[in-house]
Amino acid sequence: MDRDKILLTPGPLTTTLRTKLAMLRDWGSWDAEFNEVTARLRRSLLAIIHGQETHVVVPLQGSGTFSVEAAVATLVPANGHVLVLDNGAYCKRAARLTTLMGRRCSVMGFDEAQPVSPTALDERLRADASITHVVLIHCETGAGVHNPLQPVAEVCAAHGRGLIVDAMSSFAALEIDARKTPFDALIAASGKCLEGVPGMGFVFIRKAILDACAGRSQSLAMDLHDQYTYMEKTGQWRFTPPTHVVVALAEAMAQFEAEGGQPARLARYVSNYQALTRGMAKLGFKPFLDPAVQAPIIVTFHAPADPCYDFKTFYAAARARGFILYPGKLTQVETFRVGCIGAIGPVEMEQAVHAVALALQDMGIASGAPAL
Amino acid sequence: MDRDKILLTPGPLTTTLRTKLAMLRDWGSWDAEFNEVTARLRRSLLAIIHGQETHVVVPLQGSGTFSVEAAVATLVPANGHVLVLDNGAYCKRAARLTTLMGRRCSVMGFDEAQPVSPTALDERLRADASITHVVLIHCETGAGVHNPLQPVAEVCAAHGRGLIVDAMSSFAALEIDARKTPFDALIAASGKCLEGVPGMGFVFIRKAILDACAGRSQSLAMDLHDQYTYMEKTGQWRFTPPTHVVVALAEAMAQFEAEGGQPARLARYVSNYQALTRGMAKLGFKPFLDPAVQAPIIVTFHAPADPCYDFKTFYAAARARGFILYPGKLTQVETFRVGCIGAIGPVEMEQAVHAVALALQDMGIASGAPAL
Ligand SMILES: Cc1ncc(COP(=O)(O)O)c(C=O)c1O
Ligand SMILES: Cc1ncc(COP(=O)(O)O)c(C=O)c1O
Repeated sequence: MDRDKILLTPGPLTTTLRTKLAMLRDWGSWDAEFNEVTARLRRSLLAIIHGQETHVVVPLQGSGTFSVEAAVATLVPANGHVLVLDNGAYCKRAARLTTLMGRRCSVMGFDEAQPVSPTALDERLRADASITHVVLIHCETGAGVHNPLQPVAEVCAAHGRGLIVDAMSSFAALEIDARKTPFDALIAASGKCLEGVPGMGFVFIRKAILDACAGRSQSLAMDLHDQYTYMEKTGQWRFTPPTHVVVALAEAMAQFEAEGGQPARLARYVSNYQALTRGMAKLGFKPFLDPAVQAPIIVTFHAPADPCYDFKTFYAAARARGFILYPGKLTQVETFRVGCIGAIGPVEMEQAVHAVALALQDMGIASGAPAL
Repeated sequence: MDRDKILLTPGPLTTTLRTKLAMLRDWGSWDAEFNEVTARLRRSLLAIIHGQETHVVVPLQGSGTFSVEAAVATLVPANGHVLVLDNGAYCKRAARLTTLMGRRCSVMGFDEAQPVSPTALDERLRADASITHVVLIHCETGAGVHNPLQPVAEVCAAHGRGLIVDAMSSFAALEIDARKTPFDALIAASGKCLEGVPGMGFVFIRKAILDACAGRSQSLAMDLHDQYTYMEKTGQWRFTPPTHVVVALAEAMAQFEAEGGQPARLARYVSNYQALTRGMAKLGFKPFLDPAVQAPIIVTFHAPADPCYDFKTFYAAARARGFILYPGKLTQVETFRVGCIGAIGPVEMEQAVHAVALALQDMGIASGAPAL
């Protein structure tokens, strides 16, 4: 049987057939018809965050990391100072790319099982006037923590510092409202909760800071100001767009809107999350995070204590039943991850749990319970 | 009728249905099955240039320009000095991105209707020992000039300077043989003569220089050494790959090999080129370039002298007949361009010429002849 596997990964994820079918055409990237797809997509993206008054959205070729790097490169001036609120792997990556491009970067470390602390940030900003920009990862996909966007945004605004939000794995699922949450830039990508295919990111940029961003990027490809200016003038992307990825995202967007937008998407992911954690608990598995700080996006589970457990065998056994799990990304504890996002519902999550149960049986493991 | 238009543009171009059908599945980017697609694709790419002994190939997310920028960023050290051989728009872009990233960059200007001169390069390198790298655009897609790769490579080798070749629009059509043509890096992309969909590039890097490239890139996303090292170690891309673009390229590659590889691809494009220029000549159109310096990739035609001519109307009239033309990219002369590449043959080129004839009729233009 060569049926498509269900991807329980935080992107690429399972997309609908309708989304994929949109890729069966070729589009001229210079043609008005394609420009209209781009324009419509950008309007829909802005509407998701209610950002029409305050923000623009700039799509960018490449994976999500390219858009994170582009946001930092475009927003932070040569003499800027970036503070990364670090509670996981994607925070560390943001710090690394900021340092590499030659921007001063400080890291404020937090426990990877806990949200970052707006109070600690407030103290830090009070103490260090040199910090110009704060980077927050909204949902830290490493462990799955839901970080406190609204309080962090308020602290940054109170201190007059810029806020750059990596909302890669939360955008379109968790609520983000530009009318009440101040930020300078917010980054997401095609192949996450919008359920498109991977290949492009997009960055919301606050209109009020746009002009000042001209000429800051040392990278031509990643200059979002240049991309924006060109797109506004011509309706086109500066360099060849991933046309098939763009039309697939437009098609995924239509389904997102028909489903009921962000609230409906969140509700479905919450159902997925509940079906997953309920089922896994019955098998003895224990989530790494306190449910109170868990985003319903990706769940990290402790590996079973049983000495017969081995991730590779476990992965292969679940895969043979049609489900692709995801390795853990934590350094200290042995874990694995299960995504709740994609074009799937609680039915698929229940089947996934069943596949996990059978995988344990295969391995001769009685319970998913971790070491105490 | 909503039949797909034929794209006579230098990418995105018309792809086969078989290539597009490969995108109807979702792939886990961490899964062994996908890693095998990437590995197979990389082996096939290397084989095209007979580079197995001398080079590695590093795929990169994003459009072709991202890979050009990545090649420069990864190869040229902070104190390097790049000389761009400039006979067109893509040369100018390469110079711009090199300067922007803070590398010293000199430009040697040539007539955009002529190939760059290996003799002039030889003199320049003799006179300026500070130049560490030369950038050559193999086929300057701006006007369509076929630049002399082999002589330029020999001059660079004789002077012990690095050569970076942008072979975006020539790779897989024009002959490139790493066994006889020395170069440090050569760049191409998915959506050109391999007839995949756009969304990724790839860079061939000479093995002998790889180690020295570590840590040179100021961009994390564009660090080809990092991408390479990670891929060799894990079989995976560093950041989420454009999975559907990758599998489409793998499928396009299988068709490329079945067609007979580069010689067969070139032969088809030459037939396309001949059918096009023969037909256009009958309508009075005059190519901008001397056929002796023309690559059979994209042809620039002078706009008709007739005062009724207007590119937008012409474009729309050809489009109504199912063909997407491409605007000119020259600054001094009014032109338009017609691509000869993509999953099309002489039959489509003859139909395109017929569509152009009808477009002229629509506009009340008797002949495509340009002003003298
Ligand atoms: C929070 C976060 N940031 C950044 C990224 C990086 O995205 P990409 O792998 O597309 O480069 C991811 C990917 O999952 C993510 O979850
Ligand atoms: C010679 C050459 N270099 C670079 C590029 C840029 O590629 P992209 O538009 O994919 O960024 C092109 C695109 O046609 C090209 O023909």
